[in-house]
Amino acid sequence: MFPKVGKYTFRIESYVCDFNGKATLPILGNFILQAATRHAQERGFGYEDVSRDSVAWVLSRLSIDMYEYPNHNEEFTVETWIEDVMKLFTQRCFRFTNSEGKIIGYARSVWAGINTDTRRPVDLTVWRADMFAYLDTTIECPVEKPAKILPADGEPFMGYTVRYSDIDINQHLNSIKYIEHTLDVFDLEFFKTKVIRKFEIAYLAEGSFGDKLKLYRKEIAPNEYVVDTKKVEESICRSRIVC
Amino acid sequence: MFPKVGKYTFRIESYVCDFNGKATLPILGNFILQAATRHAQERGFGYEDVSRDSVAWVLSRLSIDMYEYPNHNEEFTVETWIEDVMKLFTQRCFRFTNSEGKIIGYARSVWAGINTDTRRPVDLTVWRADMFAYLDTTIECPVEKPAKILPADGEPFMGYTVRYSDIDINQHLNSIKYIEHTLDVFDLEFFKTKVIRKFEIAYLAEGSFGDKLKLYRKEIAPNEYVVDTKKVEESICRSRIVC
Repeated sequence: MFPKVGKYTFRIESYVCDFNGKATLPILGNFILQAATRHAQERGFGYEDVSRDSVAWVLSRLSIDMYEYPNHNEEFTVETWIEDVMKLFTQRCFRFTNSEGKIIGYARSVWAGINTDTRRPVDLTVWRADMFAYLDTTIECPVEKPAKILPADGEPFMGYTVRYSDIDINQHLNSIKYIEHTLDVFDLEFFKTKVIRKFEIAYLAEGSFGDKLKLYRKEIAPNEYVVDTKKVEESICRSRIVC
Repeated sequence: MFPKVGKYTFRIESYVCDFNGKATLPILGNFILQAATRHAQERGFGYEDVSRDSVAWVLSRLSIDMYEYPNHNEEFTVETWIEDVMKLFTQRCFRFTNSEGKIIGYARSVWAGINTDTRRPVDLTVWRADMFAYLDTTIECPVEKPAKILPADGEPFMGYTVRYSDIDINQHLNSIKYIEHTLDVFDLEFFKTKVIRKFEIAYLAEGSFGDKLKLYRKEIAPNEYVVDTKKVEESICRSRIVC
């Protein structure tokens, strides 16, 4: 049996860095998903395993706290474990360390298992009770549990149309692409002068090819922003960003 | 001394696949750059090494021939070597194999070393003559040498503004992002019914934050397309796509 906590190391290549020479949040999001995917695969509940039951893992919430961003050429290690399995959701946590073994951040994610025929969630406690064997509570994850993110409105800051490069294997807008587009409401000056300490995203609805989306940005407190991505009037994702 | 040919294996995770369940061209481009970066780093002429001489490697041409695309959960192995070093350019080739060891494609790339202070190319045969020790001509790369790609004009197919997520460590439009945007001129029907066998891209000028780019698409022969990305009247990149 694989250990409860999986550990995966990635190298920060220069071409995945922004102009600060540090890994970007979408890239870290990518590594987070890669770690989650491998952890689940190794333990028998990966994409292939669950698709035999016509189920797909759907990411509902992702909340990332970064104390420091890894530099290019550094190694970035992701440890991941399952913190909780409930009827409709499972919480998976992450701890990040840099090349020197220093903890530089944590993340918390919330996933549902969706039946791809009925589009309804499955009861995780019944469907995959074997996941309970992998629950780990020895590492504390200090990321606060996701709360509701308030909407933003007013004048849209930018719009985009969902195209081929945005679409994932399930023909929906890719989870990482939501993060990329969300950060694109900020200009270079923002990234030159501020550092994002907390990035929280709630995936509310699926985006599809050809959807014309609009992004709304609101500063809800000093150095705290909400970015709301809407298809007509419906929010398909909302983020809270704290610098 | 490291062998002349470097070999790097990547796993095709489901979230880097398109709706066909296969790795996308931008992802393969990403692995190609990753292999090139590691090969150069291991042999002493990586990003960090050359930046000590105020030089940056600039990708000028990339031409990819794919016979088959790797499926999700498969391994994708990239072998890379230096085929030629000339005054202004060096050619780096790539060979791709799948999990069964079957050759599924090749690529050829052309790089210049640009002095980051003067923005002028360095003479590679003088500046890094040590690279000659790594020339390898034992593997034949069947990808034809890059020729001029004709321009496309008429009505622009789509436009986009260069934003934070498009920008690389050198504050320019990221090489892979050019490929993503280029493919976005095709709709889902295209990717459902056709397979790209050859993708050639010429990087002609740098894109910068805030640039408003327009993409032009032209079918120059049956199943052969040119996509031209322009800033006002100047082409910043051009691609030729053969299905």
